[in-house]
Amino acid sequence: MTAWTRADHEFMARALRLARRGLYTTDPNPRVGCVLVQGDAIVGEGYHLRAGEGHAEVNALRQAGERARGCTAYVTLEPCSHQGRTPPCADALIRAGVGRVVAAMVDPNPQVAGRGLAMLQDAGIPADSGLLESEARALNPGFIKRMETGLPLVRLKLASSLDGRTAMASGESQWITGPAARADVQRLRARSSAILTGVDSILLDDSALTVRPTEAGFDESLQRLVGDRQPLRLVLDSRLRTPADARILRQPGRTVVVTCSDDEARASVLREAGAEVLKLPAIDGRVDLKALLRWLGQQQYNELLVETGATLAGAFVAAGLVDELRLYMATKLLGSSGRPLLALPFDTMAQQVPLRLSDLRQLGEDLRLILRPGDEEQN
Amino acid sequence: MTAWTRADHEFMARALRLARRGLYTTDPNPRVGCVLVQGDAIVGEGYHLRAGEGHAEVNALRQAGERARGCTAYVTLEPCSHQGRTPPCADALIRAGVGRVVAAMVDPNPQVAGRGLAMLQDAGIPADSGLLESEARALNPGFIKRMETGLPLVRLKLASSLDGRTAMASGESQWITGPAARADVQRLRARSSAILTGVDSILLDDSALTVRPTEAGFDESLQRLVGDRQPLRLVLDSRLRTPADARILRQPGRTVVVTCSDDEARASVLREAGAEVLKLPAIDGRVDLKALLRWLGQQQYNELLVETGATLAGAFVAAGLVDELRLYMATKLLGSSGRPLLALPFDTMAQQVPLRLSDLRQLGEDLRLILRPGDEEQN
Repeated sequence: MTAWTRADHEFMARALRLARRGLYTTDPNPRVGCVLVQGDAIVGEGYHLRAGEGHAEVNALRQAGERARGCTAYVTLEPCSHQGRTPPCADALIRAGVGRVVAAMVDPNPQVAGRGLAMLQDAGIPADSGLLESEARALNPGFIKRMETGLPLVRLKLASSLDGRTAMASGESQWITGPAARADVQRLRARSSAILTGVDSILLDDSALTVRPTEAGFDESLQRLVGDRQPLRLVLDSRLRTPADARILRQPGRTVVVTCSDDEARASVLREAGAEVLKLPAIDGRVDLKALLRWLGQQQYNELLVETGATLAGAFVAAGLVDELRLYMATKLLGSSGRPLLALPFDTMAQQVPLRLSDLRQLGEDLRLILRPGDEEQN
Repeated sequence: MTAWTRADHEFMARALRLARRGLYTTDPNPRVGCVLVQGDAIVGEGYHLRAGEGHAEVNALRQAGERARGCTAYVTLEPCSHQGRTPPCADALIRAGVGRVVAAMVDPNPQVAGRGLAMLQDAGIPADSGLLESEARALNPGFIKRMETGLPLVRLKLASSLDGRTAMASGESQWITGPAARADVQRLRARSSAILTGVDSILLDDSALTVRPTEAGFDESLQRLVGDRQPLRLVLDSRLRTPADARILRQPGRTVVVTCSDDEARASVLREAGAEVLKLPAIDGRVDLKALLRWLGQQQYNELLVETGATLAGAFVAAGLVDELRLYMATKLLGSSGRPLLALPFDTMAQQVPLRLSDLRQLGEDLRLILRPGDEEQN
């Protein structure tokens, strides 16, 4: 174990803050920050903003120029060792003559993990990792999961009353939560790679599932950065019931209708209306959710947001496919006739789904809970 | 408005901490603390421990002795002006020669409010109130409500999963929440004047509704103080279905079966088994809940804890009789077939019950929410 100094911690914390500036834009790349330090002075810093543009290390080296020679480089992710759209960062650090490299975490792809650090060490540059690792991992949960498993991170977003209801039996449901919670959902959409809903939400609410940057509470510079980037929209529609005039098909960005139907005529109508149609295998007449996740992973989608009704949400939970449950809870009672949070028809306590609370905060009058699978024993 | 000094605040905060020591024992009296100060030194302090024993002021004066002359007395509640089981405290303060009196709040009984302070002022002693008033009111919510309205404070305690379920459809329900939450419920019982349940809870769970001081996590001195005091137990039993061998009838302390039934034979059986039987008016064949609250107020019960199933809990909420909802929420999903939190058969969003969150904390793996009626606009 390397003994990190307080200065090491502070510079890496700065690099993490820089990395966070790419929260809404680096997709499918990870969010990465870099700080270059001579003695106790920062001589260059940078972060990755968009795929195809400079990596964090390269941006920081450009700022430092000649002052990079002999410096310590703090990077939130192991410098890459392979030629991608840009040359390998490990090479750039070696060429600039940096004296030492500290990475928060190694490359999450088990097949390449450690190669960037090894390149540096082979060039005689001390290179370690593990400083503020859990903070670094928290920045890129979807990228890391995809690298490790080939599947995107699955976030299930739900909004309910205190008594676990999402709407009245009639479907009446508008404005369960307040503006602060709704703005938070907009930010959650904005950081997602893809957003999935069920065809019932389209039929019932004609949802658009777009990011509306003004509602997200972004400041002007962030609004400019996020620009008109829209996450991929997915409609799970086993029987191709999406109406050709659905609002979601008329939004900027891509909408993919995911089906297991063979109805080519209906698929053509939807393609005509602006949708892409993806056919996947079925399980019991419904799209195989795991196959959908595999497809998303192959297509380099890191973070999937599921915003849907009780049936599909329950199916994701029952299949054990949810990595993170975000529950926006309004401090009100909607009554015992209301629609349930999740369709999970359990009979015995043994079927219960234990969750661990990982974050809890108040958003206006509402609560936001972030929960992950697992019970206390697994902590 | 009096301008209070920082020292005033600190001494009153100390008096409030002393008052809190009576949390579990002063019933039906209020929790009151008193600090006597000469210059910047405390010369005496006291609190009320039990009805029939010394009031806070008298206990503090006893400790101060001659040093009380010319001191400032900080009391969390206006000194009493009437002869009760003990002589009026305003008299005692006058006789001891205190130089100034600061009360956190006036007597909540609108018919006597201000008389104690007036007695002091008439004796030439400056006497003010209002310092840390909201903190002082929070110590005695039930006493204050009873003085102001004749009715006890009603706390509804519920335990549920994240999806608003209290048990499986079969009734299987043990241990939804963990030990920390259950200890908190024991402390809540211990501070209550009376605990109400429905006959269905007796029939289903054979609940005892007793305080178990060891489970409450009380330290030894508090266990000694609380001793074997048990809140009054109430079983709401419109048709006198409580079994004569119910566990609740064999516990230390009083159990009152509250009914609207005329079945004298059945009432005799229950009396024989150790219960008291209270007959109250009916509304639609069920005990009039408001009449029950009036009876409790007349009998000097300050804080009523309702621990019951969805039907009776829903009836209290629907009737607008709940002052405080305590929701213990386990971070798990029990599924959509489970029993609802509250029987509230609403049809439209307009019927929703808005609540204000007044406290939120984690207890082990569970959450505790304290909520009060009203929406944000009423803040």
